[in-house]
Amino acid sequence: MAKKVLKFGGTSVGSIDRIIRVSKLIQDETKKGNKLVVIVSAMSGKTDELLSLSKSISKDFSDRELDVLVTSGEQVTASLLAGALNKLGIKSRSLMSWQIPILTEGKHNNSRIINMSTDKINEYLNNGEIVIIPGFQGISKIGDLTSIGRGGSDATAVAVAKLLNTDSCEIYTDVDGVYSSDPNKIPVAKKIDKISYEEMLELSSLGAKVMQSSAVQTAMMYSIPLHVKSTFTNREGTKIFTEKNIDYSKVVTGVAYSKNDAKITLLGVQDKPGIAAEIFEPLGNARINVDMVIQNVSSDSKTTDLTFTVKREDLEESLNIIKNNKKVHVKELSHRTNLSKVSIVGAGMVTTPGVTYKMFRALADEKINILAISTSEIKISVILEEKDTLKAVKKLHNIFELD
Amino acid sequence: MAKKVLKFGGTSVGSIDRIIRVSKLIQDETKKGNKLVVIVSAMSGKTDELLSLSKSISKDFSDRELDVLVTSGEQVTASLLAGALNKLGIKSRSLMSWQIPILTEGKHNNSRIINMSTDKINEYLNNGEIVIIPGFQGISKIGDLTSIGRGGSDATAVAVAKLLNTDSCEIYTDVDGVYSSDPNKIPVAKKIDKISYEEMLELSSLGAKVMQSSAVQTAMMYSIPLHVKSTFTNREGTKIFTEKNIDYSKVVTGVAYSKNDAKITLLGVQDKPGIAAEIFEPLGNARINVDMVIQNVSSDSKTTDLTFTVKREDLEESLNIIKNNKKVHVKELSHRTNLSKVSIVGAGMVTTPGVTYKMFRALADEKINILAISTSEIKISVILEEKDTLKAVKKLHNIFELD
Repeated sequence: MAKKVLKFGGTSVGSIDRIIRVSKLIQDETKKGNKLVVIVSAMSGKTDELLSLSKSISKDFSDRELDVLVTSGEQVTASLLAGALNKLGIKSRSLMSWQIPILTEGKHNNSRIINMSTDKINEYLNNGEIVIIPGFQGISKIGDLTSIGRGGSDATAVAVAKLLNTDSCEIYTDVDGVYSSDPNKIPVAKKIDKISYEEMLELSSLGAKVMQSSAVQTAMMYSIPLHVKSTFTNREGTKIFTEKNIDYSKVVTGVAYSKNDAKITLLGVQDKPGIAAEIFEPLGNARINVDMVIQNVSSDSKTTDLTFTVKREDLEESLNIIKNNKKVHVKELSHRTNLSKVSIVGAGMVTTPGVTYKMFRALADEKINILAISTSEIKISVILEEKDTLKAVKKLHNIFELD
Repeated sequence: MAKKVLKFGGTSVGSIDRIIRVSKLIQDETKKGNKLVVIVSAMSGKTDELLSLSKSISKDFSDRELDVLVTSGEQVTASLLAGALNKLGIKSRSLMSWQIPILTEGKHNNSRIINMSTDKINEYLNNGEIVIIPGFQGISKIGDLTSIGRGGSDATAVAVAKLLNTDSCEIYTDVDGVYSSDPNKIPVAKKIDKISYEEMLELSSLGAKVMQSSAVQTAMMYSIPLHVKSTFTNREGTKIFTEKNIDYSKVVTGVAYSKNDAKITLLGVQDKPGIAAEIFEPLGNARINVDMVIQNVSSDSKTTDLTFTVKREDLEESLNIIKNNKKVHVKELSHRTNLSKVSIVGAGMVTTPGVTYKMFRALADEKINILAISTSEIKISVILEEKDTLKAVKKLHNIFELD
């Protein structure tokens, strides 16, 4: 008998038929004698529908009231699933975040779960009941409803697993698990059976959106084993552990890519301490997400050249901010759009020499021009022209034996 | 400066445009310096939509979870209206029933408000804020979400007005007020400016569904003046008071009717104490609503004849229950459908002789056959053939000087 958290995402509970399907899947788990806490998202499309209602009232809708509005979505799913389980004769009850309570801190629309009372949940579990909790929400210290950001039901699942000290945390979603690359574009991409938290984080920050990154980070911090699987198939899914539990037969675990990048280059920037902060602080204040940053000493060795990437929709604003930045003198400012980022990720890379060379050689063989390079211990990212993206991904997927 | 409860029904908040309209109406009230507590229903159609989701899971959906489900509807409206007011620069916040809290007792799906903490609401009101409360709901002693029956937002408004001791309770709806008859069918029907609680109760139980009856009863019990008006016009609406505040220039206040009635007659029932209970108890257990009941001594004076009316959809089941009732011996059982009930209502009737005669004379003049009669202090109802309904209503509306 195990104590488990099961989390079902928006598409898994996207219709009455699917909610009934989930109730049967839970029924199978109860037959194994497991104690279950179930976290649910809003039915797919629901959160967007509620957000759009708020936007038709005001683009700048009250943060507090937005949380009251959007948290109703998961409330609906939780009650429907509890009702579906009751219909199967399974004792079950929904518990809202204020009934538990689940305490959060931070700003409205972007709070963090900091604590949860476990007494009531454990009492119901010991009484043989299944507890259904709406994801993505909690209450603040002063008792206001709060939400914890898009995709926050993953964060709820991990937090509940940690605070209840459960044996596992299973994330049910509409894909089979984590793939070595995007299976829709790279048909030879394979499902990964086991992956480390770090690799998962690199892959998900690169666009493989199976789980919310901050939830993976929390799981990593507290060594909570995650298991991502599909609600719609019986395949085994992907287990996410600490690195030491994984036997790396392959150097590279996956190839990820993102499109819609733009590159900004500042040539001849005065080279003095704090200059990078001067450049990036106003961008951060404008909530522009700066991705890769590459800095070189320039040819005259008194100034420096600096290149970074942003999402294309942020390009114009970024350029304006730099032009209007009185504290930074730039000899020449250039930019380029229609770029993409391709990355290879693998925890085995740290201990394997020659991966970088092999990657660059492969891209050169395909006559693909590399515009910028950035590396970390378990990732190498390159910026390419957008038209070369899929060609590069396929080639790398092949030479690193992922096909 | 007054302290007021304003309640907005489902059609008044049925779209974003209408919610914005309501926010402007509230803005006008704040300009008068009034302290406002606003009760909102779910957007029109929302509660039915949620109920239909539950029914697609189970016809016998869990009572507890149904309350979690349906109460989300008013939560959405409350947050949207608070957001719309904030956009106009008006300080406002939604407070859910568990945040206040509003305490209820009784069964799920049919609870009653028994108490409410007023501290938090008064604090916000004194701070110049408008408090928005979702109608139709509360929490039970053990902290579960509860709902207080269809149309329950009226009951919330009256209970909040009573517990906060406000100066008035204004019910905003999609009609101008209470009419002397159905204005869609009787074009000469006039809006009533003032009406007593008792008359309002008789009219609303007869199908003039402007307000939920139990809310009117509560208002009557605590002498809370009600004011029904339209969200969509600037007309004065109808004020509902205790009888003594009303100057009765007319004997009859309104003419109401209901269609879809059926009549069941039991001839030659053994006349013994308790026989009526024996007949009606099983009908009550089957949740069949028995309306008019008329009993006469029959011609042989040893048995009695009994007639009562039910809704047409309940006719067949009612007949079966009577046939299968072993405790009751009936010489002859007959029934008739296609009937309607027409009633004249007026608090002035008690002190005015001849109203009954005048009514029957008028119907006879129109050659309308009366099939049954039932009277109370402020109401006379007759059962007619359905085809005569409108002719009767028009005639009575005319002769009692309501045109």
